[in-house]
Amino acid sequence: MSDPKPAQEKKPQTWREQMYEIIFEADTPAGKLFDVVLLIAILVSILVIMLESVKSFDAKYDRQFSIAEWFFTILFTIEYVARIICARRPLRYIFSFYGVVDLLSILPTYLIFLASVDTVDMQRLGVIRALRLLRVFRIFKLGHMLTGASELRHAIWTSRSKIIVFLTTVLIAVVIEGAALHLVEDNAQREANLNGFDSIPESMYWAIVTMTTVGYGDVTPITPLGKCLAAMIMFFGYSLIIVPTGIVSAELAHSGSKSDSSRITTQVCPECMKEGHDSNAIFCKFCGSRLN
Amino acid sequence: MSDPKPAQEKKPQTWREQMYEIIFEADTPAGKLFDVVLLIAILVSILVIMLESVKSFDAKYDRQFSIAEWFFTILFTIEYVARIICARRPLRYIFSFYGVVDLLSILPTYLIFLASVDTVDMQRLGVIRALRLLRVFRIFKLGHMLTGASELRHAIWTSRSKIIVFLTTVLIAVVIEGAALHLVEDNAQREANLNGFDSIPESMYWAIVTMTTVGYGDVTPITPLGKCLAAMIMFFGYSLIIVPTGIVSAELAHSGSKSDSSRITTQVCPECMKEGHDSNAIFCKFCGSRLN
Amino acid sequence: MSDPKPAQEKKPQTWREQMYEIIFEADTPAGKLFDVVLLIAILVSILVIMLESVKSFDAKYDRQFSIAEWFFTILFTIEYVARIICARRPLRYIFSFYGVVDLLSILPTYLIFLASVDTVDMQRLGVIRALRLLRVFRIFKLGHMLTGASELRHAIWTSRSKIIVFLTTVLIAVVIEGAALHLVEDNAQREANLNGFDSIPESMYWAIVTMTTVGYGDVTPITPLGKCLAAMIMFFGYSLIIVPTGIVSAELAHSGSKSDSSRITTQVCPECMKEGHDSNAIFCKFCGSRLN
Amino acid sequence: MSDPKPAQEKKPQTWREQMYEIIFEADTPAGKLFDVVLLIAILVSILVIMLESVKSFDAKYDRQFSIAEWFFTILFTIEYVARIICARRPLRYIFSFYGVVDLLSILPTYLIFLASVDTVDMQRLGVIRALRLLRVFRIFKLGHMLTGASELRHAIWTSRSKIIVFLTTVLIAVVIEGAALHLVEDNAQREANLNGFDSIPESMYWAIVTMTTVGYGDVTPITPLGKCLAAMIMFFGYSLIIVPTGIVSAELAHSGSKSDSSRITTQVCPECMKEGHDSNAIFCKFCGSRLN
Repeated sequence: MSDPKPAQEKKPQTWREQMYEIIFEADTPAGKLFDVVLLIAILVSILVIMLESVKSFDAKYDRQFSIAEWFFTILFTIEYVARIICARRPLRYIFSFYGVVDLLSILPTYLIFLASVDTVDMQRLGVIRALRLLRVFRIFKLGHMLTGASELRHAIWTSRSKIIVFLTTVLIAVVIEGAALHLVEDNAQREANLNGFDSIPESMYWAIVTMTTVGYGDVTPITPLGKCLAAMIMFFGYSLIIVPTGIVSAELAHSGSKSDSSRITTQVCPECMKEGHDSNAIFCKFCGSRLN
Repeated sequence: MSDPKPAQEKKPQTWREQMYEIIFEADTPAGKLFDVVLLIAILVSILVIMLESVKSFDAKYDRQFSIAEWFFTILFTIEYVARIICARRPLRYIFSFYGVVDLLSILPTYLIFLASVDTVDMQRLGVIRALRLLRVFRIFKLGHMLTGASELRHAIWTSRSKIIVFLTTVLIAVVIEGAALHLVEDNAQREANLNGFDSIPESMYWAIVTMTTVGYGDVTPITPLGKCLAAMIMFFGYSLIIVPTGIVSAELAHSGSKSDSSRITTQVCPECMKEGHDSNAIFCKFCGSRLN
Repeated sequence: MSDPKPAQEKKPQTWREQMYEIIFEADTPAGKLFDVVLLIAILVSILVIMLESVKSFDAKYDRQFSIAEWFFTILFTIEYVARIICARRPLRYIFSFYGVVDLLSILPTYLIFLASVDTVDMQRLGVIRALRLLRVFRIFKLGHMLTGASELRHAIWTSRSKIIVFLTTVLIAVVIEGAALHLVEDNAQREANLNGFDSIPESMYWAIVTMTTVGYGDVTPITPLGKCLAAMIMFFGYSLIIVPTGIVSAELAHSGSKSDSSRITTQVCPECMKEGHDSNAIFCKFCGSRLN
Repeated sequence: MSDPKPAQEKKPQTWREQMYEIIFEADTPAGKLFDVVLLIAILVSILVIMLESVKSFDAKYDRQFSIAEWFFTILFTIEYVARIICARRPLRYIFSFYGVVDLLSILPTYLIFLASVDTVDMQRLGVIRALRLLRVFRIFKLGHMLTGASELRHAIWTSRSKIIVFLTTVLIAVVIEGAALHLVEDNAQREANLNGFDSIPESMYWAIVTMTTVGYGDVTPITPLGKCLAAMIMFFGYSLIIVPTGIVSAELAHSGSKSDSSRITTQVCPECMKEGHDSNAIFCKFCGSRLN
């Protein structure tokens, strides 16, 4: 009975604590609004970079794009500084996954301005801020998303041994198939003025394209023996998709019954910046510091 | 014991009630016949539009196609008016999903006649009546189809949080992959007189084609680094299909046991035009009005 | 205790009964040997037709292929006549699925000999005897195969309502997507001297190639809007594969527990030619006649 | 209580027993180290062969590649001899799967040296040593991997009857589809100067490319009837992937509950060279000899 009270009475917070709650969390209306505005800003800034890469647009609206880019860079810089200020342990934030991504998404614009780096390539690097969109899971207040994500993560984690067995098998198959097709096809392809199976790495690229059923068709076998081997590889790749699907299905079917009981909040630990705390958690389960 | 009786005694219906039962429902022989005839008419009218779009047919049978098109348009207009007349609340029907589709499927022919709209494009719009075929689920009297559809809908709805997490991950991956390949491939492609990775949106199109394992091959990486990245994207896309499959499998496995108990009728609520009522329902579960 | 005895004592069979047991069943050593020899003969005869279709082989070994073809045709004719003779109700066999396939696989050679039909096309029709290979399931004495097949059939049959809902949705999607891409792409494609979206049926072919993730690349959208629509269709097709997979998985998971209890024999009912009888069955479950 | 002791007291081993434990097992630190070093050596040697196949690298670093190849060949020869010496029954090892692979991976280099075999092709054969990487599963001490692998193997083995039914159906479908498309497309393709459906085997290659949804696009139907048939085949192939996925999912879901109880060690039976022994096993479950 005394547990929820301290939380209520904690109201008289310092401005840094209030700011922390707005910027890092999404449980309060202000915090949710901040996250929504931030997500829209990120989306628009990515759109600007995307449109800028289209030559015909860039020729026409070059100036407008530059202004927009600077606007968003300054906005995200302010946000980055604010995050450092209100974080209880700033260094932890700076070297956390999101901290690094936040820095990387503003750096390119400054580098273009300061140094004489190749402008076009640099500008494109800005799309790394797409990673910031992962924060989208935080603004859905009920934590449904987080439960979904953590359940998926759990199912994949539990099946890790089967997945490693699977991937090792696939990689060994790709190496052997690549070498086999290189041996079988190389001469015939060179006679037909093609160079698809020129070397083992090139053949391995073909083997991956085939086994994942992507099948571009830029490289295809032309000898009867090569076609036979390719057909066998296709059947093999086709059956392979069965195995991991079955693994994850079975894992999720098992874990499904537990999924309703655990509700996860959007709180971020002020110490170690980790997410995924249960709604009844009072202390961070990763570093033991109090969640506010 | 007194429950089924009123239904029996209600026989002396007005003509509007009888018409309603024939047009909107499929529980009586007349209602089922009406739906079957309507579905055949829709199928034939779609076939006419499809054949009309083939140039060689259009040149030969232009007149016959015009007559057929007008025949079906007038038929569907009569049906549309009849539906408005016998619906208890006509406005509800007009603005329901099926009401809008019903209107849209007769409009193009009239617009071509009245205004000077580009004829060819307009005629093609008629295929929107394909959406009317969704009514097919109603004519199978036992409601098996509806049960199947509603179970699928339920499984997808329950898994919505996992599906959103999944789609967000995919879209972020597409943006970053698109930008990466654009950076890596653009120069080499332009030297080889190709323009597949010309801009980030173009590269994103390639990333989607690759990740969904469609793999047209109209755009393919040609640099070693680009091929390496592409191979990684393929493996990523290949593993991705596992996740949602597992999600829906697990959900359906859970919901499967309940599927036999609930039987759904083909009745449409006369007030709110919603379907999916249980066979023992007396009142609409969406708006509370009596089902007849 | 008296049940198995009659079966033991029935030994003094007529020659027709013995022949029936050898030709139609695979529970006795002689019956199994007959089926194995027959399967090998079918495989070799298909191989002959396949090699005959390769021009370079046909030029060299034309005579040998003709002789082999006549050899197998006469062999299968003898077998067909023997089946008719020893079947208790010959007409039932003649009009059963296998009876028709057996006839169709010997007919082409005779027709070429008698009439002046286009030889090449006729010869190829012989591959219809590949359907006879379905008998392979009978020679595995323990009936494991039949259990597997019947379980699959059951899972598919139980899910039929969901599968019909699924297929209807896919077909409606294909029609609408085909028409949409035809409207969007037709003019641009014709300007670029391509004719992939020439008519709605052609566009529907493209839509099917895309939605099933086959992705030949012989027809691809070239306008930005067309590419956008194509990307959406790809995601749609990609998610679609989830649904039926989930359906069948769930169904098989439910039915799995029952799979061990039912053992199916390779017996064929002598009256109605149906297979799939349980090992303890004394009478045919389809027509009620005694199984021997 | 006396059981674990003999294992402890067995310490004063002969040098051959110690060597056996290091080379064939991964339960001791020395054994694990040996396996890790070996795996790295195999990986590097495969990389050398791969790079050697790239023409531009081979021209520059020909000498270095030769030296590296000889270095690894001699290393693996020493390892091979050591394995023969310390194996209790050397012949068993030599003719076991790994024994043959170990020999095959050193043979090519010697053959090139001794005989005048085509050098390039021979060198490539060295990639067969990729199969040795399968030993990777042994170095993860807890046997998680082995449990994963053996569970997968079990699920696939239990479903074998369904998988055979499935594969037979697919192969019969490929033969019939190949012949059908050959009949329908051959003439039209030859008129358009294409030769994709030249013979039944070529058409079957196309059918496999299509049914597995790889879809290269090097061979595509061009007649309306051929496109119709192709569309049907695509839907068929698309639905086919459902069936085996469902089978393995269901099987894994059933076997999943048992998976935690069985722990498998990395021990190899000194007599019959088989792996997969439970952690509490004292005798080999395949040949009955004592595990040390």
